[in-house]
Amino acid sequence: MKEDCVAVLSGGLDSTVMTYRLVNEGRTPLLVTFTYGQRHDKEILMAKRTAEKLGLSHLVLSLPLDNIFSSSSLLKGGKDIPVGTYSVENQKSTVVPNRNMILLSICAGIAEDRGLSKVYYGAHKNDTAVYPDCRPEFIRAVSAATEAGTYCRVQVIAPFMDFSKADIVSDGARLRVPFEDTWSCYSGGETACGMCGTCVERREAFRAAGIQDPGDM
Amino acid sequence: MKEDCVAVLSGGLDSTVMTYRLVNEGRTPLLVTFTYGQRHDKEILMAKRTAEKLGLSHLVLSLPLDNIFSSSSLLKGGKDIPVGTYSVENQKSTVVPNRNMILLSICAGIAEDRGLSKVYYGAHKNDTAVYPDCRPEFIRAVSAATEAGTYCRVQVIAPFMDFSKADIVSDGARLRVPFEDTWSCYSGGETACGMCGTCVERREAFRAAGIQDPGDM
Repeated sequence: MKEDCVAVLSGGLDSTVMTYRLVNEGRTPLLVTFTYGQRHDKEILMAKRTAEKLGLSHLVLSLPLDNIFSSSSLLKGGKDIPVGTYSVENQKSTVVPNRNMILLSICAGIAEDRGLSKVYYGAHKNDTAVYPDCRPEFIRAVSAATEAGTYCRVQVIAPFMDFSKADIVSDGARLRVPFEDTWSCYSGGETACGMCGTCVERREAFRAAGIQDPGDM
Repeated sequence: MKEDCVAVLSGGLDSTVMTYRLVNEGRTPLLVTFTYGQRHDKEILMAKRTAEKLGLSHLVLSLPLDNIFSSSSLLKGGKDIPVGTYSVENQKSTVVPNRNMILLSICAGIAEDRGLSKVYYGAHKNDTAVYPDCRPEFIRAVSAATEAGTYCRVQVIAPFMDFSKADIVSDGARLRVPFEDTWSCYSGGETACGMCGTCVERREAFRAAGIQDPGDM
């Protein structure tokens, strides 16, 4: 099976639904997952499960950002993950400096290396307040940079840019995504903590979409 | 000594002169060097020497791109390095897919992590024909992306964008850069091969600048 694009798959809800959506549209993404020192490395198991179920090629790349960045609570060895709502104040410590640009640059290199010209990632509207590297102006700028920097003129595409997380849940339900194969909690435990910003956000998204979350253990 | 910017130092001629230039301007760059699977890893020793001589902080980061990219002759395990002139046709196989964007993204993350807002790299005019990630439109676009993707609005700056390699040699002579602490040859040997595109380009640059190259062994 010949891949026709690259997709960043974290193993979280957004990128998993995006992967099912690409497959549903007849695309064959090469999936790329990064172990970058995130506490919640359970998401990587989920990514592997999705790749296997869909029969897609999957690269799992090691990029120990926790060795070079000290400011993020999302990384092993960082401060504690904050509990509470998905607000800017609460979530700001979870920002990994310039993370998405780093991951997208590598994926654009992988695309260029294989003669492909599109890289997909799962940024969405709810993330824009906290994470600068999920905002529309970032998405446009990073795509302009990968286009300019490669012979294949690789583009970065965020199909959920105008979606809320609830919209993504609805889309996932339509596509019959097995939500139990996705992981959101940032706390790094074996089961979801239910209290961190991403747990709260996930619960609210399923509630707003009127769908039962089978992953909510 | 408190760093006030980040500089990508490969250990080659261009980034070494750039580092001396920054120091001469009163800046204190945090130097970042990548071992990314390049054949010519002798340049890393040169980078270490420069950092030590200038008393600057130096991160040497491992990023084994040779494990994920197969198309580049510059990486270990790739095709042979071409010999001859520094022409597009000759040098194209040495392009590492999207390399500069990958390295600059990580450096922008390092800047953001430390509250710094400027990342310098040594792209110059001679490189623009072969390497898309050295062209002015790339430099502008990558800077727009790092600005949009970070709270510090990190900028990418290429002070040699309008310099030829001969101009860089002249600037290095003015700054009394010990050119013997720089490495250009791509072939990966203990001594410079004298025949690959970068050896030819270096020789021509010193000749054009009217300066003797002490590194030409």
